Amino acid sequence: MATGAPERGPGTEAGVAALDEFSLIARYFDRPGAERQGVGDDCALIDVGGTTLALTSDMLVEGVHFLPGADPRLLGHKALAVNLSDLAAAGARPRCFLLALALPRADESWLAAFSRGLFALAAEHDCTLIGGDTTRTPPAQAGGAQRGPLTICITAIGEVAVATYCGRAGARPGDDIWVSGCLGEAALGLAMRRGEIDCDAMEIAPSHRDACLLRMDRPTPRVALGRALAGCATACIDVSDGLVGDLGHILARSGVGAELRWADIPRPGWIQNLDIATQHRTVLAGGDDYELLFCARAADRTRVAALAAPELAVSRIGTIESAPGLRLRNGDGTLLKTTLQAYDHFASGP
Amino acid sequence: MATGAPERGPGTEAGVAALDEFSLIARYFDRPGAERQGVGDDCALIDVGGTTLALTSDMLVEGVHFLPGADPRLLGHKALAVNLSDLAAAGARPRCFLLALALPRADESWLAAFSRGLFALAAEHDCTLIGGDTTRTPPAQAGGAQRGPLTICITAIGEVAVATYCGRAGARPGDDIWVSGCLGEAALGLAMRRGEIDCDAMEIAPSHRDACLLRMDRPTPRVALGRALAGCATACIDVSDGLVGDLGHILARSGVGAELRWADIPRPGWIQNLDIATQHRTVLAGGDDYELLFCARAADRTRVAALAAPELAVSRIGTIESAPGLRLRNGDGTLLKTTLQAYDHFASGP
Repeated sequence: MATGAPERGPGTEAGVAALDEFSLIARYFDRPGAERQGVGDDCALIDVGGTTLALTSDMLVEGVHFLPGADPRLLGHKALAVNLSDLAAAGARPRCFLLALALPRADESWLAAFSRGLFALAAEHDCTLIGGDTTRTPPAQAGGAQRGPLTICITAIGEVAVATYCGRAGARPGDDIWVSGCLGEAALGLAMRRGEIDCDAMEIAPSHRDACLLRMDRPTPRVALGRALAGCATACIDVSDGLVGDLGHILARSGVGAELRWADIPRPGWIQNLDIATQHRTVLAGGDDYELLFCARAADRTRVAALAAPELAVSRIGTIESAPGLRLRNGDGTLLKTTLQAYDHFASGP
Repeated sequence: MATGAPERGPGTEAGVAALDEFSLIARYFDRPGAERQGVGDDCALIDVGGTTLALTSDMLVEGVHFLPGADPRLLGHKALAVNLSDLAAAGARPRCFLLALALPRADESWLAAFSRGLFALAAEHDCTLIGGDTTRTPPAQAGGAQRGPLTICITAIGEVAVATYCGRAGARPGDDIWVSGCLGEAALGLAMRRGEIDCDAMEIAPSHRDACLLRMDRPTPRVALGRALAGCATACIDVSDGLVGDLGHILARSGVGAELRWADIPRPGWIQNLDIATQHRTVLAGGDDYELLFCARAADRTRVAALAAPELAVSRIGTIESAPGLRLRNGDGTLLKTTLQAYDHFASGP
């Protein structure tokens, strides 16, 4: 089952191969600059007057990040949500955004629904659309009516309290590893939509199917939690590529390793009835959950736990260690072996 | 001959039809917000601390804004240049930018050339790449190796002195209308590249052909002029859609009309040897020149004229009038009649 992570959509190579290719791209664009924060974090930071802004750009492409014919209202929501999730990981207060759209056609009902989804989420976070660009997509090579792909690029801008900004590089040995909410549903939703899993054979109840689809289509950016973590988290990232991959970014940037406890990684109870390989793939490597994955000093454990709310739990799932690599333990303390490719990506220490 | 204006590239409908369709889009996204400037100007403005930022997003799509196989170094230059041109129209000092790229493949030589063109222009304007996103384009519908289209979205951020910011709405009757540089070459370059004109039959010399192609491929954002105009121009826009269309934006936003003097509109001497219909199309309606079109009080005429430099002339080409619509006069004072569609778009007054 493929994940919905940006670089690993339908039709691309396997996850790791694609990531490796894109690390090549990073090499050409990651240059030390005069601004506070370079290419690579969830957000870039710039100082303007006495204020620090967090900026992020995300491009969603039809056939890569969403399926053709996707519900435009949900798409409007998701296009902004993935950017707000980046702001959340930076602990930023959303302020405004720009929208660049390449459309196959100017379809009034599509535009009405897309803008409804977009503006509903924008209003929820007091985030104003300030500008952008609209253009056409090119005609299909073979001629005819079909054009595409629909492409959405949103740049979101927020404000951060720079004294408490943590980024990805501040995790230290002994820190707890935490994650908000539950993992796995979004990846299952994507697999369902693509017809890659047989819900009947897996005995997944209709209500759970709906929950999975909703998680994939309509992610909730954890903006309030991200801001509450300021001054408390030592590193933070949003889970867009999958738990293992995104934790890997923190480990690499912080120069540390980690141990995760499988039993403590939050997933809905019914997912625990699925076969273990599916659980591993969806909970550890499944993307699109847009929960916050963060580290905090053990001394701040009570403070972090107090951030849990009825509508959003926070779970302590592991520990940062000085030994490089990632170790995943079963409840009985044995090392859990999986064949998840993403491990190879960063487990080999120096 | 079609122009290279964003909404009227190869394969799209005629210019005006496309613009009308996109005014529909504007209706869905142009909402009054809390920020200083809404959707529609060259840049959006936001106040951050004591500083005002100008922000702009432009999306370039293969097969719409550039031809497949375009030189990646020139493409890197142009993708940033069109954004810096928007900052120039706002009189902003470029500061930084984000780059979102959807690529058919991670081709190292393409990336090396693209980033070279991009960073050369960025360095020239002390504008830092601070972040962005890279993703894949979807596979071709028919399967196989072909993917696409290559899509580039840059969001550029600059600083403006808000006390002297003019936008598009400040033109008043009696103001002079000015334009920088020369018009027409970029549109001819695009027509050449598309094989739409016969340079031999039109007796266009090879050196002029090269100049046209260079103007189209490698526009020069008029950043220094834009900043020098602050406090002097009453309205300003960059010529991306064509002189008549872009002046139309100023007229509409300012609630005024204008007279243009055909004889005073700057174009290279050799273009004046072409047939008059081609001259009109390229000089009045041809896009992609990225010169600055601006208005200023007649009392500031000497001050504006003093901004002319050996490498960049400024020409006084007309006058803002209270009567709505645009009138174009020949040298003998007669009204010039053309069939340019773009006129219809805004000439009908209330």
